[in-house]
Amino acid sequence: MHAITEEVENLLINTHPKLAETENWRRMYVGEMVHPVCTAHRLLPAVVLFVLFIMILNPLISSRTNKESDERRKTQSESTTIIVVTPTHKRPERLADMIRLSQTLSHVSHLHWIVVEDGETTVPAVSRILQRSGVPHVYLATTSSSGMPKRGWTHRNVALQYVKENYERNRSAVLYFADDDNTYDVRLFNDYIRRVERIGVWAVGLVGGAWVEAPHVSSKGKVIAWDVMFAPGRPFATDMAGFAINIRELFRARNASFNLNCAKTYKQGPESCFLSQFGFRKEDLEPFGYKDYPKEILVWHTKTSKSKTRGPKRGYAIESS
Amino acid sequence: MHAITEEVENLLINTHPKLAETENWRRMYVGEMVHPVCTAHRLLPAVVLFVLFIMILNPLISSRTNKESDERRKTQSESTTIIVVTPTHKRPERLADMIRLSQTLSHVSHLHWIVVEDGETTVPAVSRILQRSGVPHVYLATTSSSGMPKRGWTHRNVALQYVKENYERNRSAVLYFADDDNTYDVRLFNDYIRRVERIGVWAVGLVGGAWVEAPHVSSKGKVIAWDVMFAPGRPFATDMAGFAINIRELFRARNASFNLNCAKTYKQGPESCFLSQFGFRKEDLEPFGYKDYPKEILVWHTKTSKSKTRGPKRGYAIESS
Repeated sequence: MHAITEEVENLLINTHPKLAETENWRRMYVGEMVHPVCTAHRLLPAVVLFVLFIMILNPLISSRTNKESDERRKTQSESTTIIVVTPTHKRPERLADMIRLSQTLSHVSHLHWIVVEDGETTVPAVSRILQRSGVPHVYLATTSSSGMPKRGWTHRNVALQYVKENYERNRSAVLYFADDDNTYDVRLFNDYIRRVERIGVWAVGLVGGAWVEAPHVSSKGKVIAWDVMFAPGRPFATDMAGFAINIRELFRARNASFNLNCAKTYKQGPESCFLSQFGFRKEDLEPFGYKDYPKEILVWHTKTSKSKTRGPKRGYAIESS
Repeated sequence: MHAITEEVENLLINTHPKLAETENWRRMYVGEMVHPVCTAHRLLPAVVLFVLFIMILNPLISSRTNKESDERRKTQSESTTIIVVTPTHKRPERLADMIRLSQTLSHVSHLHWIVVEDGETTVPAVSRILQRSGVPHVYLATTSSSGMPKRGWTHRNVALQYVKENYERNRSAVLYFADDDNTYDVRLFNDYIRRVERIGVWAVGLVGGAWVEAPHVSSKGKVIAWDVMFAPGRPFATDMAGFAINIRELFRARNASFNLNCAKTYKQGPESCFLSQFGFRKEDLEPFGYKDYPKEILVWHTKTSKSKTRGPKRGYAIESS
């Protein structure tokens, strides 16, 4: 574990823990107002003018403040590390999926890829893909814990544990679960994930029997429901590809995991159960992309068709399931 | 058409027509040998020694020559343009596939992407993907000609016509047909396609019911058969993803196309019929990757599973089939 810790340290050495500064910066002083009615009737025209003046100026000030806040958020987020967690398992299409995903992730700077093999050991052909990608990574292996659903649950927990053991809690980093067969637009990483301050959510295409699943956002910018076909009553009705978590939250809610309790509602997927453990209301989530024009989907829940494969392998490096 | 020609001119302005030089360089003078038996019996030990000397030296010289030739080929190919032809059509997974492919191609330098829409007009959401990719491209649209199989045949012909009308015949460029749902390792472009001098062939994964389809290469480096499960008797039993053509050959065999004659053997696919029109024997093809260790597959004939999609589109830019 020591070598891995060093690797992560080196990877993160350039990221700045700007959070503390930022939170101080935000505590705004609100002064007391002197009640104007007591002073004089003759000041009324001046008061009316003043109110009009404020009404005109206010949107300008507020838009400027928003822009400054966006700018600040952007500068801060550029040095934020994105931790991508990918559970993966042997199947005929897996090497193709991993090649495609590695070539997508290699476009994204400040990214750390945690790949967790479903098996007793890691797989050399996958190691070679990770090496060639040039993406900083760690490649772990585990089988599913007893009583847990297969495919990914135990593997995501191992990755969460890895982050808590190897990252400083004041590092600026956001964690995202990315399955190897989905399709990711590089803007997802730079425009959405890297800017998540607590828990961010967004639309996912081709999932749960729907064209798109998305958080339903009010005119005030708050998530008030879930625009989904599948199990809309869930507290956090998002797909695994539809959210990312700032690691501050992982350190705060240390026990949040894909656990035996979540396994009881296995058929609804683990996402809502996992997110419920952070103590958020859905109104506290940060929605992304809902006010863009055109509104575009930056992540698609795609699946590579199973191939009917037979015959010899002709000496090529190919893995069976 | 004028604006497009200029675009191609600009794209190619930096490529060098090194071919003529290279072909001169290759004409090797073979001297006449004086028959040694006539001169003297006393020279026999010297002759034996000389022959032994040549036998020892020959592999060294030949290996050095091969290395020099590889080196020359590499330098020459670095400035070669790769023309990628992608026929595409509306379906729920298409935007995801095009995003993924665009992000792969954007890793490759000196690449020109010809995308041909199956429809009356091009599609704005696809145009946006092409623009964002930063890949030099042209986006055309056509429906299938009468009597031709749907999906791609007419579209590839339109692209071939475009190349013949817009590229100078002495430009150094190689053409490759790349469907939007396949998986491409970036090494395919830089290590294989860019080095094709006439017609290059290589292995394709997950295709024709087999783990892998590959040219069968003799110990002398010649293609002597096809290691395939599907229709191995075809003269050129390769998948569309398994070959690339130097555009010199396109200008030489001007009428080569996906035509009504090929449509008669529709069920065997158009590849073998198309390649037969260049007048090659399979021994003339240039095989790639067959002597690597480990032998790896650099292109996979993947397919994105059809999604069962229903419900509203929630204002997102999504295309139906």
